[in-house]
Amino acid sequence: MRDVAVVGAAMTRFGKYLDRSLKDLTREAVQAALDSAGMDKSLPQVAVVGNAAAGLSTGQECIRAQVVLREMGIEEIPMINTENACASSSTAFHLAWLYVASGMYDVALAVGMEKIYQQDKARMFAAFSAGVDVELVQQIIASLQADLAKKEKEGAPGGEGGGAGKSRSMFMDIYAAGARAHMRKYGTTKEQFAKVAVKNHFFGSLNPHAQYRERYTLEEILNSPLVAEPLTRLMCAPTGDGASAAILVSAEKARQYTTKPVWVRGSALGSGKDMKPGMPGITARVARKAFEMAGMGPEDMDVIEVHDATAPAEIFIYEDLGLCPEGEGGRLIDEGVTELGGRVPVNTSGGLLSKGHPVGATGVAQIYEIFLQLRDEAGERQVQGAKVGLCENGGGMVRGEAAATSVHILSL
Amino acid sequence: MRDVAVVGAAMTRFGKYLDRSLKDLTREAVQAALDSAGMDKSLPQVAVVGNAAAGLSTGQECIRAQVVLREMGIEEIPMINTENACASSSTAFHLAWLYVASGMYDVALAVGMEKIYQQDKARMFAAFSAGVDVELVQQIIASLQADLAKKEKEGAPGGEGGGAGKSRSMFMDIYAAGARAHMRKYGTTKEQFAKVAVKNHFFGSLNPHAQYRERYTLEEILNSPLVAEPLTRLMCAPTGDGASAAILVSAEKARQYTTKPVWVRGSALGSGKDMKPGMPGITARVARKAFEMAGMGPEDMDVIEVHDATAPAEIFIYEDLGLCPEGEGGRLIDEGVTELGGRVPVNTSGGLLSKGHPVGATGVAQIYEIFLQLRDEAGERQVQGAKVGLCENGGGMVRGEAAATSVHILSL
Repeated sequence: MRDVAVVGAAMTRFGKYLDRSLKDLTREAVQAALDSAGMDKSLPQVAVVGNAAAGLSTGQECIRAQVVLREMGIEEIPMINTENACASSSTAFHLAWLYVASGMYDVALAVGMEKIYQQDKARMFAAFSAGVDVELVQQIIASLQADLAKKEKEGAPGGEGGGAGKSRSMFMDIYAAGARAHMRKYGTTKEQFAKVAVKNHFFGSLNPHAQYRERYTLEEILNSPLVAEPLTRLMCAPTGDGASAAILVSAEKARQYTTKPVWVRGSALGSGKDMKPGMPGITARVARKAFEMAGMGPEDMDVIEVHDATAPAEIFIYEDLGLCPEGEGGRLIDEGVTELGGRVPVNTSGGLLSKGHPVGATGVAQIYEIFLQLRDEAGERQVQGAKVGLCENGGGMVRGEAAATSVHILSL
Repeated sequence: MRDVAVVGAAMTRFGKYLDRSLKDLTREAVQAALDSAGMDKSLPQVAVVGNAAAGLSTGQECIRAQVVLREMGIEEIPMINTENACASSSTAFHLAWLYVASGMYDVALAVGMEKIYQQDKARMFAAFSAGVDVELVQQIIASLQADLAKKEKEGAPGGEGGGAGKSRSMFMDIYAAGARAHMRKYGTTKEQFAKVAVKNHFFGSLNPHAQYRERYTLEEILNSPLVAEPLTRLMCAPTGDGASAAILVSAEKARQYTTKPVWVRGSALGSGKDMKPGMPGITARVARKAFEMAGMGPEDMDVIEVHDATAPAEIFIYEDLGLCPEGEGGRLIDEGVTELGGRVPVNTSGGLLSKGHPVGATGVAQIYEIFLQLRDEAGERQVQGAKVGLCENGGGMVRGEAAATSVHILSL
């Protein structure tokens, strides 16, 4: 396999864009990624596009990439439409990497895109619900609709202010149950979870592409509306729209386009399995593969983006990635290890909690953050001297484990 | 890139299965493919699954592969969910090939699956319509629903008997317009189109996996209900459900599993572009890439499967593949070149016309037919001494060209 470098990356600001289409958002991200590489749109030889929910949210299935990319004059090249729920565009990035690493192509475009926010809330919830087994879907939709009806009756603000609140209760209930189990088993506290949210919202305030840019105190996080104990709304990722793109090239092409290539050292993807006690979970399994490919370990990482769909998830992922022993994730946040100035800052983009989580766009947006950090272009949230970074992105759920998880390791 | 062999392949019989689920159909095809390779289900290291319309037809998006494969105990490995409309599973096959050719994995599973036939016809038509630009979707659904209402009023049999009839009129209208243009420009006749249907329905009668196994005379084809001049219902592919699977392995593994490996010599994929007069169309462009990879030309092919969504399409594809000069496709069918005993039999499986066309399952089902033919396992429809075969599969439409087309070349 050949060396592969990222020479351009970009994203739209994540947000709730009732007036912007998937085409419009994707054009902005792809053009910005091409511009950041100094590359013409005629040069990518293959495009891999990740999207989770357009079929259900907009009615566009089958050829999502072609419909969007031809609109901006990218045509003729092979286009791969891929989805893996919340890990859709990290899957796209992995395939783009494979095309270049294999020697088949020298220039590949990886895209993440999502347009999910809309007036029709029932349709939006149906789209979310497709990340689990379809046989549960009707049940989930019914539960979400009941929640919505209740919330509307109560006059709640409806997912604004950093959290999707009750509108995603099914997934949030699963996260909450995991958080309570961690608290019981290891003594992790609700305050430690809240500290993750304080950190990520602080980072989001420094990121012009973040959906939410407000800073919050520990008390504000703890006192925001309860979603499911111990999760408050500000500990939950919001819904939104957005797009992200990256340009991957061979070593020879990299030298042609930039003096600051960011190399892909590991690209691993895995699926869930039936868990047995004591067995490593999907994130630990996939991270192990990525570290092995890169010939590195968790101690080599300088900056990390993880899938903090909720604040407790970030704590679990610290442990899965081997940043600390099992059960000690809470200590890591207490000691400031993962904040700006700490040993290994995590979610400097603001993470899903604050940057936002337009499902299919998240994976490549994580790559974009690490791309900026390693090139010393992350502005106020720059991790000084960062040379190696990691992205962890999980998606969907079947029988209690994520359906898909990817880990990418990038370095100077 | 390494040599890659197909060592197992299978499909369900295509049909209209109101009582079978996507899981059920896919389990049958995957297990049969594993059995044909003599391989345990724990051995594939990656699975790539093509499906076009489950999001809209069943509500399952995002993690279609995981939901279906975990049900049969395939788990943990990377799973790629991909779609490219009618070319979804040839795209999956292409990616599975790339995983093995690159050296990343030694054993890859490629799957095609579709469950589209259902009582709720409006939902079924909405799923079909996702293979074009979403901005046209509402318009198309309205047109299809109007057609259905008209047909039901007229008491027509509703897509039985080898053709989808008016239920797919939008796509059929485009094919019909292309057929009329070919007739005007080259003098191709309606009888020549009908002969393609006679040939493919004959082949279907010899294939136990074909949805329709009736033989028809030229007169019966010509006299079946008119869809759009010159297309009659028996010249149009039906709708249906089904699944298909193939096992791709490295050369070293191939020797371990079989004495009859079928090698992948070319794997090309392309997208549509804005056409200019005199420019080769997408099928010709992609075929050229595949022939170049294989170091072969059209004259080397012994048996071919093409995307005969309608009978005239097969004539156009003869020309695009270079089996004859432009405009002479009609002559080829007149001379019997593509029938059993001819120089290069085409669609020995029955093609989409007779074997059926469960959208996402079609691509790998074409691979299965060529796999059988090259291994001398095609029974009554065996092409004697076939050593090299080709599969052409097209999908979706954006601005008048197929959104995606793949060409695979396989050989002993």
